[in-house]
Amino acid sequence: MKYELYYWPQIQGRGEFVRLALEECGAEYVDVAREPSAGGIEAMLRLLGEHSAGHRPFAPPFLRAGELLIGQTANILDFLGARHSLAPTSEAGRRWTLQLQLTLSDLVDEVHDTHHPIAGSLYYEDQKPEAERRAGDFVHQRLPKFLDYFEQVLQHNTAGAAHLVGERLSYADLSLFQLVAGLQYAYPHALGRLAATHTRVMALHEAVKARPRIRAYLVSPRRVPFNQKGIFRRYPELDPP
Amino acid sequence: MKYELYYWPQIQGRGEFVRLALEECGAEYVDVAREPSAGGIEAMLRLLGEHSAGHRPFAPPFLRAGELLIGQTANILDFLGARHSLAPTSEAGRRWTLQLQLTLSDLVDEVHDTHHPIAGSLYYEDQKPEAERRAGDFVHQRLPKFLDYFEQVLQHNTAGAAHLVGERLSYADLSLFQLVAGLQYAYPHALGRLAATHTRVMALHEAVKARPRIRAYLVSPRRVPFNQKGIFRRYPELDPP
Repeated sequence: MKYELYYWPQIQGRGEFVRLALEECGAEYVDVAREPSAGGIEAMLRLLGEHSAGHRPFAPPFLRAGELLIGQTANILDFLGARHSLAPTSEAGRRWTLQLQLTLSDLVDEVHDTHHPIAGSLYYEDQKPEAERRAGDFVHQRLPKFLDYFEQVLQHNTAGAAHLVGERLSYADLSLFQLVAGLQYAYPHALGRLAATHTRVMALHEAVKARPRIRAYLVSPRRVPFNQKGIFRRYPELDPP
Repeated sequence: MKYELYYWPQIQGRGEFVRLALEECGAEYVDVAREPSAGGIEAMLRLLGEHSAGHRPFAPPFLRAGELLIGQTANILDFLGARHSLAPTSEAGRRWTLQLQLTLSDLVDEVHDTHHPIAGSLYYEDQKPEAERRAGDFVHQRLPKFLDYFEQVLQHNTAGAAHLVGERLSYADLSLFQLVAGLQYAYPHALGRLAATHTRVMALHEAVKARPRIRAYLVSPRRVPFNQKGIFRRYPELDPP
């Protein structure tokens, strides 16, 4: 069965967490909105507008898997994790992986709101003073708090610090990789200050990046480059040295 | 087995979505941080600080269910939904319920950020102009968009508009009830303008409120009253007539 991923074609965004899971498990999938022959963005917008099609999602990303149409990033990953061994099969392990993913999702939301603290419908330039205030809090309070947490989860994993959950790769590891990649692009100074005290997080990032399928994906045209339209944006004024 | 719920004792907050599910299914539980004899808030803070205790949560709410310690509201509800028939048993139904819950959670985050658009660590008074800008966007753009979505989900439910998912109550219905209750408290003018065109959402709210266990819960001392410390806060300047 070939999966259909639906996400905005020009950004990594939240869809990237799903793409990484699909790539790591070698699943067959089509990135519909980036593939005119598969229907392109029109096909995605049609599903977003069509209640009659069944379980209409509120927003991308969503995934078609045979008869299922699944929305919300963490929900999709929990589904893929169970199908492709990207999460433990035990209830405790599955819940823990989903819990970590939802915490990573909260951090992703906070990254987004650093450049859009007032409204997603306004330009960054229309909320720049507010963005500078919010980014200041993010860099000094929120980001260290989240990174401390993930560092400690790795440190206290009784199976070793190579993975967030147990002794095997999970989708939460892939998501933490992506989070660090995004921070390297958007907040290089803030991340640089934290890297030395968060060595396990940084090592996990490097280890995921070196996995054969991820490495191949990252240099492929399937990986959308970071840019100033996505969740992770580089505004130097938000990340002073 | 008696569940242990851990959440901030003075607010409804995100813990309320879990409380409502526990109350509706008649589960035995103790609200630990509100119960000095159960350990009180110290017991909660201890678990938040103790990595050695296992799967340390990043933030409340979290639920102890025997050996399991589960964090993140939607994760807890997905777990309780499967155990207590508050969600369908089919994969499609379970995923759809979780998807709706995660969309409701996104809306709850946006309500929170209307009064704290810059930083949760600052007082409302320190971010009031920003809050007014953000609340304006929320009232005119985001809230109608979310409510339109849930109204249409109800309208297009092939089993009828009485529930979000199929023909039975799910935890997503309980959460939508709570969301409307919170908006009645925090944004009565905005909700008042939308009520007439969102009759299915409002009817679901009333139907949940009239359920015997929910009705009993709402007048019990177990229900924390809405107040100015929670997610839903009444600041008249954010909700002009």
